[in-house]
Amino acid sequence: MKRDYPMSKVYGLLEPGPVVMLTTAANGRANIMTQSWHMMVDFEPPIVACVVSNRNFSFNILRETQECAINIPTVELVKQTAGCGNTSGRSVDKFKNFRLTPVAASRVAAPLIGECYANLECKVIDARWADEYNIFILEVLKAWIDPSRKRPQTIHHLGWGQFMVAGKTIKVPSKMR
Amino acid sequence: MKRDYPMSKVYGLLEPGPVVMLTTAANGRANIMTQSWHMMVDFEPPIVACVVSNRNFSFNILRETQECAINIPTVELVKQTAGCGNTSGRSVDKFKNFRLTPVAASRVAAPLIGECYANLECKVIDARWADEYNIFILEVLKAWIDPSRKRPQTIHHLGWGQFMVAGKTIKVPSKMR
Repeated sequence: MKRDYPMSKVYGLLEPGPVVMLTTAANGRANIMTQSWHMMVDFEPPIVACVVSNRNFSFNILRETQECAINIPTVELVKQTAGCGNTSGRSVDKFKNFRLTPVAASRVAAPLIGECYANLECKVIDARWADEYNIFILEVLKAWIDPSRKRPQTIHHLGWGQFMVAGKTIKVPSKMR
Repeated sequence: MKRDYPMSKVYGLLEPGPVVMLTTAANGRANIMTQSWHMMVDFEPPIVACVVSNRNFSFNILRETQECAINIPTVELVKQTAGCGNTSGRSVDKFKNFRLTPVAASRVAAPLIGECYANLECKVIDARWADEYNIFILEVLKAWIDPSRKRPQTIHHLGWGQFMVAGKTIKVPSKMR
């Protein structure tokens, strides 16, 4: 069972740079897009920038619906993550094809991926740079986390199917949020 | 000794989301800023977006000089990386204070950090969103890598001095660049 995750802590999920799966929905049809080109822009409310290429099926849906969810997979899902990156929602129902579970979100129409350890419900707040740079600015409205996952082994794309798996955690004195 | 790194491969250095150290220079004075809020925007030429807060000493320098370098540290440099994030260039000469070696770049005035395993010389190509979102769009002009570092253990910030250290690398079939 997922739990509500505080908005103030959301940045810590994306700042380390995991591959994410972006979900969208339009006309009763859901889609999944794998991507790594995202960054935090502000802490609270959590603002996220991401790049969705206009060659992707998700581009127009994101621009039209102004909504999506960011789902963060761990290493157990690496094949599905790569699979979703290698297929297009134009021809494949990715939830069905990769046996992923769509879970209803609370604030957006896009479904959450049940198997991902964290899910962020987002609205597009600025698409002015979508044409020029494929950049969308999102605000996270609601976040969910699986509290049983203490050390989620996120995956980080190095290119061409190579992924770095999150290793150990170390701590040094720091005032940096 | 560092070697020239192909522009076509630069994205693979930033896409996994490592903490980086941004160097700038103005009036003969160099500065270092630690940051994790960056993302790739395009492959080739490599275009990178990053967030530099207007509260940071580097903000005005970056806007005025339109130049910087992105330096990628590994776990051996975690204390210096956190240290540079906890001090301001307004009052501290970070190269001196953290015993880091400034190395002359070839295309920009900002020095490279010798101890970092990779260095990207960048120019600002778009600062139109600097006021609103603190976002700068950079183009990488030249990249350097230490070819002796086969498995660089990059560090990924989780918040408050906690860093995830890059773990093992796995490979799955994929056509995703």
